[in-house]
Amino acid sequence: MKIALLLAYDGTDFHGFARQKSARTVQGSLEEKLSMLLRGPIETVGAGRTDAGVHASGQVVSFASTSDVDPAWVQMRLNKLLAPEIVVRAAVDVPDAFSARFSATRREYEYRIYRSGQPDPFRDRFALWVPGPLSLSKMRLGARALIGEHDFSSFCKRGEGSMVRRIRSIRFVSSGDELTVRISANSFCHQMVRAIVGMLLDLGIGKRDPGDAGRVLRAKDRNTAGSVAATRGLHLVRVGYHRDPFSAGWKA
Amino acid sequence: MKIALLLAYDGTDFHGFARQKSARTVQGSLEEKLSMLLRGPIETVGAGRTDAGVHASGQVVSFASTSDVDPAWVQMRLNKLLAPEIVVRAAVDVPDAFSARFSATRREYEYRIYRSGQPDPFRDRFALWVPGPLSLSKMRLGARALIGEHDFSSFCKRGEGSMVRRIRSIRFVSSGDELTVRISANSFCHQMVRAIVGMLLDLGIGKRDPGDAGRVLRAKDRNTAGSVAATRGLHLVRVGYHRDPFSAGWKA
Repeated sequence: MKIALLLAYDGTDFHGFARQKSARTVQGSLEEKLSMLLRGPIETVGAGRTDAGVHASGQVVSFASTSDVDPAWVQMRLNKLLAPEIVVRAAVDVPDAFSARFSATRREYEYRIYRSGQPDPFRDRFALWVPGPLSLSKMRLGARALIGEHDFSSFCKRGEGSMVRRIRSIRFVSSGDELTVRISANSFCHQMVRAIVGMLLDLGIGKRDPGDAGRVLRAKDRNTAGSVAATRGLHLVRVGYHRDPFSAGWKA
Repeated sequence: MKIALLLAYDGTDFHGFARQKSARTVQGSLEEKLSMLLRGPIETVGAGRTDAGVHASGQVVSFASTSDVDPAWVQMRLNKLLAPEIVVRAAVDVPDAFSARFSATRREYEYRIYRSGQPDPFRDRFALWVPGPLSLSKMRLGARALIGEHDFSSFCKRGEGSMVRRIRSIRFVSSGDELTVRISANSFCHQMVRAIVGMLLDLGIGKRDPGDAGRVLRAKDRNTAGSVAATRGLHLVRVGYHRDPFSAGWKA
């Protein structure tokens, strides 16, 4: 049988999502506990390979189990072992053909920024502090150039395979002294969200011209994009599927 | 000259506020940097000796400096060295007679509780997760018995000196799935806030009867109070003085 998990985690103290031999990762911790609970090696597939320090409120993971188990039991036991750093928000049966990664049609990331006069020890773990002036209109202008299907080579770290992606939307939400940038795409290549947000912030603080966004995109050259935003503000908030396995589990 | 600092800190990774020889503490970190900046040993006095894991948004610290320095410079330099874990929210000149501890007439602590169905990796560092039913009216009833001047021996860890304190108010603020208990007193003895909140939570979940609050108080016996609330939810939010040194710095 196959099971899908909806995960939230505080990525601060993990070396990213993806399993690594000698570093503590979200996937590694999850697989260790799953293999223990199900008495056999379990390999998981994740929808988004979040970098070290990146958080998630809506990561999706799937795995096959040779034994029949109740997803609710798996959820309860995993939460006893992993929460509150990693929380299983939902666990459901899925068809064997389902893959958290390959079935996904859409990923949504949020980048959170706070703008108080001083850093805030209670927000700094999950948001980036940007104290100076920040032009939202310049950020919007730059973001507009990136919407749609493009070759995002300038914003991708690695050169394997196609860098063509389709960005559905980049939205800006201001609330009090907080600014959230919400980016939705079919998928993202490595460091793409952080490179995009890094450039948008450069436009916002006036370090670069809003016209640079389109120029960087057309250059298809990683060296033109510049700054990569710090991971602390980045959250994987939602993964979309043609048929949503968690229908009741989403908080969009 | 004498300087007073208004501090916020994330207490999670400190062994409390008070200086210790071989453990990392808020006061120890602060004094180390101050002594470096002012080129000589600096000893500070804090208004509240917060326990390991307790946070502060309004801790007050004072110290004497043999050299004349600009408080704004001290604030700026300390924030470069200590933020975001410890943030100096304000720094001001104070009269030589001022002591962050002995001049204080009032301390206010908040205890934050969140009540979602599952633990939340993004709130769990600064609030206590209480998932089950919790009777606010029973907690209010118990709290009422503690208001005023009493011998709080039942709620105090150590037996040195008088345990008579005056609690001005215990307020409960509900917002969404969060509950904040705000306790104000002239001062608190060791573990007093955590012992009071621990008992109020026991009343709220029905483990004890609301009438127990008065009985425990009158017993003047530490062993009667029971549970001590976890430190993660506790925040020192405000220290009051006859003449507030930071008048513009407060967020009440």
